[in-house]
Amino acid sequence: MTSPGRRGRRPGAPDTRAAILHAARAAFAGAGFAGATIRGIASKAGVDAALVHHYFGSKADLFLAALSLPVDPRKVLAPVVAGGPERAGRGLVAAMLSVWDNPAVRPSLLAMVRSALDGSAPNLVTEGFLPAVIRPVLERLGVDRVEERLSLVASQVAGLVVVRYVAELEPIASMPAEDVVERIGPTIQRYLTGPLP
Amino acid sequence: MTSPGRRGRRPGAPDTRAAILHAARAAFAGAGFAGATIRGIASKAGVDAALVHHYFGSKADLFLAALSLPVDPRKVLAPVVAGGPERAGRGLVAAMLSVWDNPAVRPSLLAMVRSALDGSAPNLVTEGFLPAVIRPVLERLGVDRVEERLSLVASQVAGLVVVRYVAELEPIASMPAEDVVERIGPTIQRYLTGPLP
Repeated sequence: MTSPGRRGRRPGAPDTRAAILHAARAAFAGAGFAGATIRGIASKAGVDAALVHHYFGSKADLFLAALSLPVDPRKVLAPVVAGGPERAGRGLVAAMLSVWDNPAVRPSLLAMVRSALDGSAPNLVTEGFLPAVIRPVLERLGVDRVEERLSLVASQVAGLVVVRYVAELEPIASMPAEDVVERIGPTIQRYLTGPLP
Repeated sequence: MTSPGRRGRRPGAPDTRAAILHAARAAFAGAGFAGATIRGIASKAGVDAALVHHYFGSKADLFLAALSLPVDPRKVLAPVVAGGPERAGRGLVAAMLSVWDNPAVRPSLLAMVRSALDGSAPNLVTEGFLPAVIRPVLERLGVDRVEERLSLVASQVAGLVVVRYVAELEPIASMPAEDVVERIGPTIQRYLTGPLP
């Protein structure tokens, strides 16, 4: 047995880490990102809340760790925020494609999307990924009416995922990423910064 | 037993009709709308191709009969075509919402969409509904680059279905139809008639 305080390449206690991740997955799947609490997850895992923070950081960090995504979407989206609101439409599509077009990454994303579409609610995309990852992008871009713009952006991004990667509808399925960015980017831009009725 | 030639409220032979629909569902699911043939379906059902046409009309008619949709999407889309290309964006969103917002109709549509998203290819939406129902709308509107515009339209419509009806993401899920039309209609309009790179 290793103790959490032990020095090493990684904080020890793989069993404890696994127990926290297990409890976190159950909590996020059951209550969504907003409903789950670090305290509740810690309690389920039989550890102190401070230990959860020590191992995993914030609730968003823990959520992303629980998803076991092969890339950190916040790193991928950082340049979109840095580019400012007027370039964010194309930037967001380009960032999303850079991840999804990677054949090593796509299967785990497809599995997440399929489970999100199977009708079990709350799901990890709308109740987890959107509030934990995408909403902060809109907030940092400083746009108004965040919830409304977020759901409009989600409607186009979700459909692009469905058409390009799930249904593999041509010509979008085989289109070079930059051509998709040129066609879909202006839509995302309008949803992010265009006038709303 | 009734014979196909018998006079009556409806062409007789319910067993024959059922056999044709059964063969049609298998053919469309296996080969897609383009790959399935009336002749092959008739052969599987043990009847003459002329009888299939007599009972069901064209291949698109048979496809829609096989889907058992509670409404005929071509009737719903007729006003979109009649309104001309410059109003088709909002018209198409309004037509789609008029069907999907009907709680008596939505469950069967959701079942079709879920089966289309389960990874079995070819699926009835991309290989059936799009070429049989939506592509003719674009052709009758007289737009160029039909396949490309069709896949762009599909990307936004599919995402709207996912966000509003499957994931039920707010505020789009509870938004009045006319407000959705105002927000999504211009996107569909650009995909239908806007300049493409």
